[in-house]
Order: sequence, then structure tokens, then C-alpha cells
Amino acid sequence: MINIQVLLTGNELMSGHTVDSNSAMMAEYLGAAGYAIGRKVTVGDDFAELVKEIRQLSLDSDVLIVNGGLGPTIDDLTAEALANAIDQPIAEHAGAIAHLESWCGRRKIQLNDANLKQAMLPAGVDIVPNPTGSAVGFSTTFNDCLIICTPGVPSELRGMLEQTVVANIATTFPNQDTISTLRFQTFGLGESTLQQILINEFGDWPDEVELGFRAGLPLLEVKLTVRQEQHRGAQQRCYQQVRELIGDYIVGEDSTNLAQAVINALSAQVKTLSTAESCTGGLIAASITEIAGASAVFEAGFVTYSNAMKSRLLGVDSGLLEEHGAVSEPVVDAMARGAMRCGAADFAIAVSGIAGPEGGTADKPVGTVWIAWGSAEQLHTRKLQFNAPRKWFQQMVTATCLDLLRRELLGIRTPPRYLQRYGG
Amino acid sequence: MINIQVLLTGNELMSGHTVDSNSAMMAEYLGAAGYAIGRKVTVGDDFAELVKEIRQLSLDSDVLIVNGGLGPTIDDLTAEALANAIDQPIAEHAGAIAHLESWCGRRKIQLNDANLKQAMLPAGVDIVPNPTGSAVGFSTTFNDCLIICTPGVPSELRGMLEQTVVANIATTFPNQDTISTLRFQTFGLGESTLQQILINEFGDWPDEVELGFRAGLPLLEVKLTVRQEQHRGAQQRCYQQVRELIGDYIVGEDSTNLAQAVINALSAQVKTLSTAESCTGGLIAASITEIAGASAVFEAGFVTYSNAMKSRLLGVDSGLLEEHGAVSEPVVDAMARGAMRCGAADFAIAVSGIAGPEGGTADKPVGTVWIAWGSAEQLHTRKLQFNAPRKWFQQMVTATCLDLLRRELLGIRTPPRYLQRYGG
Repeated sequence: MINIQVLLTGNELMSGHTVDSNSAMMAEYLGAAGYAIGRKVTVGDDFAELVKEIRQLSLDSDVLIVNGGLGPTIDDLTAEALANAIDQPIAEHAGAIAHLESWCGRRKIQLNDANLKQAMLPAGVDIVPNPTGSAVGFSTTFNDCLIICTPGVPSELRGMLEQTVVANIATTFPNQDTISTLRFQTFGLGESTLQQILINEFGDWPDEVELGFRAGLPLLEVKLTVRQEQHRGAQQRCYQQVRELIGDYIVGEDSTNLAQAVINALSAQVKTLSTAESCTGGLIAASITEIAGASAVFEAGFVTYSNAMKSRLLGVDSGLLEEHGAVSEPVVDAMARGAMRCGAADFAIAVSGIAGPEGGTADKPVGTVWIAWGSAEQLHTRKLQFNAPRKWFQQMVTATCLDLLRRELLGIRTPPRYLQRYGG
Repeated sequence: MINIQVLLTGNELMSGHTVDSNSAMMAEYLGAAGYAIGRKVTVGDDFAELVKEIRQLSLDSDVLIVNGGLGPTIDDLTAEALANAIDQPIAEHAGAIAHLESWCGRRKIQLNDANLKQAMLPAGVDIVPNPTGSAVGFSTTFNDCLIICTPGVPSELRGMLEQTVVANIATTFPNQDTISTLRFQTFGLGESTLQQILINEFGDWPDEVELGFRAGLPLLEVKLTVRQEQHRGAQQRCYQQVRELIGDYIVGEDSTNLAQAVINALSAQVKTLSTAESCTGGLIAASITEIAGASAVFEAGFVTYSNAMKSRLLGVDSGLLEEHGAVSEPVVDAMARGAMRCGAADFAIAVSGIAGPEGGTADKPVGTVWIAWGSAEQLHTRKLQFNAPRKWFQQMVTATCLDLLRRELLGIRTPPRYLQRYGG
């Protein structure tokens, strides 16, 4: 495996004004060709610092991709820093001049001094064409390291990665590996619990299948990675075994989220869904309708924040509200049935709870929520308790309702572990 | 100026599956206290690499913040790597055990082996409390460098930065400056436009008042920072001048968002709001109800995705729908009036548009949206066009509707510039 390192430059990356997504883009293109980035260093627009980093990184790596600092302004220092680091003079590069003239010509503007600065490159470098922007990239070899300087503008970087950079690396260092990652999303098992289950059950987990986790809110992504073609069978076998063990908790492959899984299951059965939300205030409906194609399964949702509206819009008996309070089993049951009736839907989700920070009582503290999910024939209710700040509470309730409906739609009968954990 | 360096760890940062925003968060909190990050290094979950980096970085810097690798799983290596780097044994830390027991207790779960791993820390470290998650942070001094290990989960990192990390650095390396930052949120002006306005109008902007921007979606945060007590007067004067210039675009101070500003304005007038959403699918209601105290001004919202539901729930005349289509001025007008009537509210927001990627026509392409906002007496309608992927489209429409209602409630009569930019 060759050692590829990245040097990211720019004061905006240090101050936090810009979040680096360029190195993720590089990883994506390199990964598709079987290469991986081993290390990244980020520094501001400081000449001495840049020279020092380029020298050091060229000693440590086979390929060094420098990103940023190719522009026309005084804080764009990459060409000069590279020249200094590799001990070459800086000079007007004929290829870069030609590129700039053509670029300005297409825009019918004059080549000015600031732009001309972009043609002043270390002697002996090769041009990396820039399909869209004014600044060319350039590459050279120093300390047996292939150094490639690329622009910070994402669209220009993408053009170079697609057309030149990855191909140059592949020509210089032909790849033996072919990385393959199998990703899937889970809900309801913590990272530690999931790992515990897998370790307990797989004494013989094959070394060549790397297991990785990425905790999102609310999903936990699991990744199975192999680095060689011949290990794809083992990767598939591991995935099958994991599915047998925790299949109920797998929401879907790749980036499938809970709302998408619910929509898929409803679409497969040609059924529709309506929502009746109090404490989640529309978040369940918004999660569903964020997915393209939601209209096939979702016609209407109700946000009934007040008691009066629960009665008026969903037909919840005001006697029930008075006797049991809004956060109660009979009320969410009636809300769900009202949503199905008024929203002309086959399935419903209904929630009523106390998101806080105010509104709790000794009997029903902040974080209490009653939820209902299912069809008119098969409607389930449950009280849960999520002790989390308002926004997280709303997200956890939304995710839990979607997952419970997903399980119902898929005919999963074993109750998920989290019902006990959050049992109110 | 002390030299602060950051070591970011995690395979997901190398593979490009995760974009690092944690270091930007650190820069923000450190910057507010007058500190800056000098260099960042990013590596994967590789034990030898981590040990090497910690040793080297501790020699190069006064403060080293390590981020990530504190979780319970096998790829979480930070504690062990630090122990190895500073040549200390790893041992169960009583403070960490107490934290884990309390954390599991609150969740009614048993402390398992995976979680217990999070209490195995290098001997002699100090705990950095984690207000929300299971993994404590920890700090120590080595090679005269203050090393602070923090979790990769952004919300947990934020809690530590707020409560402990910056304060620890400030205690060890007191800053001479007394930084004061005045933050406010704006909507509807781009960063370059806003900067242009300020530069054009303020030939005499005082050097001691640093102007900073942070582009969020959809808000643009503006910061006025002074580093010495004596410059606070100038800071206030600048703020007053900025308000005179672009006050209409200022949503609020500190972190006030659009939904909060709308709730504040409604509360002040003791008025209520209802929403009728098609293409935003509940996102406007969810934005409102995310704010604590929303119940004082918000009783009900309608998500009417289909034409049938626009008629059934909001009383939109089916003739209007047939004649003009759902994405039309008469229909959003009728939706807004229906929302006020059925939701018994003083004000309403209604939207109907084409979020895409499917459903566009030559006449009404993807990105077209009709919106209505105001009261029964003063109801405004407008067609806009946002060319953005579905999720961003929904967020832009939500923000725009909230801002237009905010302006209406505050009696701002000058139309915002963006109405022209996005004019459909």
C-alpha cells in the first residue's frame, strides 16, 4: 500500500470559517481506484510553515497532494513555497501562460498582474490541467515523492481528480488492492452493545474483513471493508451472519434512513400513512416528506399541539382529554385513529408527550411520551421516557416511531431491546 | 501566542465518509477566548500512528487537543495510544467508573465490558467531564504540553469545550486579551454582499473592531470582536451603525433563529399562528415547535400533501385546484385562509411547490413554490423559485416563509432584496 498524504492550506481552515470537504472528495476518488489517504496535515497561509511541511511530508510519503493556495492573491503561497522547498527558482511557465490566455480569452477579459502570478511556477514542474478555473495545478517529484498541487475551489479540484490526479498516481504507483466497503444502517443498538454481540457470536471473525462503526443520530452505520477482490466472499458471508443475528435492527443498506425504509415498506404494500403529532410538532411528517417519492404513501399529517385541536381536527373525545390528559394511552390511540380516518390512510403514527423544558409533573415528568402506531385493526400503544434536551427528545421520538412502524410493516414480531431501555 | 495543535483521529475522516467539523467548532470556542489553532493533523485508527503523532505533537506544541477514539469499540484507541506515548500504564480510573455507573443508571442498563473499556485510562490523567455521553475526556501534561483528549461526537465535544476545555487552557496559559464578541444572526444577504455594503458605507471602520462572518444554512452569523476592554464602546457604535444599515435583515442577537424571532413577535402581540404545508411537508411546523414555549403561539399545523387533503382538511375549493393546479396563487391563498379558520389562528403561513426531483413541468419547473403569509386582513402571496436539491429547497422555503412573516409582524415595509433574486 503506498503512503498518500495530504497538505491542506488556508487560514479559513484554521479559523473554522471553512470546513474542509476537499479531502473527503479526494478520498472518494482515490478510494474508488483502490487508494487511501494515510494522513492529513492542515496549516494556515504561512510561508515558512508551508515550506517546512512540504519538505517533511515529501520525506514521509510516496504521494503528497497539496490543496489550496493557487489563487491570484497575496495569501496564495503554494507555488513559492514548493519552489523553496524543492530548491528550484520560480519562473513563468509557458503552459500556464497559454492556459491563462485561453481562460481570459473565453471570458473576454485582459490578463492582469494578479492572474499572471498564477503562471509563476517552480522550474521543471508538470502542468495539471484545470478544466474550469484560471489556476493550473502542477506536479513534480522530490525526495522520491510525487507532489501534486491542486486548487482549493471544490469544483476545480473535482475536475482535476477526475481527469488527471488519480490517473497520474495510478500510472506512477499501479495498484494491487481493490477496496470494497459494504455499509448498512442500524437503529436501536448502541455501538458498544452491537460490538459485544458481534464479538460474542463471532469467535472466528475473519481478519481480512475490517469492521467499522460510525455513530450518527439516530442511526449507527456499520461497515465491512475488504482490501482484496478475493476476500469479497468472506465479506458477504460476514454480512449474512450479521443479518441473521441483528437483521431486525438493520434499517437498510448504504444510506437508507428510517423514513426511507418506512416509505419502501408502505410502497411495497401499496398502503398509505398519516401522522398526528403533538410534541414532535411536525418532525415525523417532515422526515417522511424529505424523501423524494413520499407522495405515493403520504397524503396528510396533523400537528395538533393544543387539546382543542386534538378534538377539532382529529375528533379526540374531549372527555378522554379531561379524564386522562393529553399525554395518555387513550388519547394517542384516538389521535392515531383520527389521523387514519381524517387523513384517509391505512396506517398512522401518533405521539403526545412532554418535550420540556417546562410542562412536566411528578406523574408525567419531562421526557414522557405516549406513542401509537399501526393500522386500525392492529394499533399498538406504548409509553416511553427519553431524558434528553428538547430537540434530541423530538428526534429520538421521531426515530423510534418510524422504526416501530417499520417493524410492524415488515412483520417483525420480536420487540426491540430499546423498548425496555426507554420503557416509561 | 501559544501554539495549539489538534490531532483528529478516525478512519471515517480518512475515507471521506465524515467531514471534520469538530475542529471548526474548536476554533470557534478557542477564538472567542482569544486562542487560535496553529496546525491540525488527521490520521486513521492506527495505534502506532497515533502514538507517534502524540509524541511528536507534544514536542511541537503548548497544547494538544486530541479528538475522537474515546468510544467503547475496538477501533477506539486514544486512551491506549496516549498511555503508550507518555509511558504510563493503563488502569481503571475511579472517576470514569463513577461517571459510567451514573450514565448507565440513568438509562437503566448494565455496565458492560465494552463500556468499562471507557474507564481504562492512562495513570495520572485528570478527567474532563462529559455532560451527555458515556465517554469522559481526560487531560495530562507531557513534554510541557497540555494534552486534552476529547470525544468525536460533536454534541459531546461542544459540552466539553463550553464547560472545561477552554477554561483549562485559559488557566494554564492565561490570555492577556479580554475578548468580547457581539454576535447576531442575519437572513437574506450573502456574505460577499454584506461585506460589500459594510465596506462601501464604512470608510472609517475602526481597526480594533474585527468583523467576522460564519455562513450557516440558512442564517449568516456576523461577529464584531474586540480584544480589549477599552474598545467595547467602538464595538457598540459599529453595531448601531450596522443596525441602521441592515437592521431589517437582522433576525436576532446571539443564536436567535427565524422560528424564535417569529415566536417572539407573535408572543409580544398575543397572536397565534397556523401552518398549511405541502412541499415543505411539516418542516415549518417542526421549526416552530422545536423552540420551547411554541405552544403559546402555535396550536395546529396541517400537512396537506395531496389535493384531496387540501380540500378536505383546509376547505380549498376543488374547482380552484382543477383550474389553477395545486402550485398556484389562489390555492396557497385558500390554504392560508383555511389554516387560520380550521386552526383558529390569527396568522398563517401556507406553501405549495415542487420540491423535486420529479414533478416539474415547463410551466412550473422543479423549484417553483407559491407561498402565502399574514393575517386574514393582510394576506400576501408570492411565487418564488429555488434551484436546489430537495432537502435544501425545503429548508430555503421554510426559512423564507418564516422571515417574511417575521417582517410582517415587525411592520417592516421595505421588501427584502432576496424576493427579487428568487422571484419566480
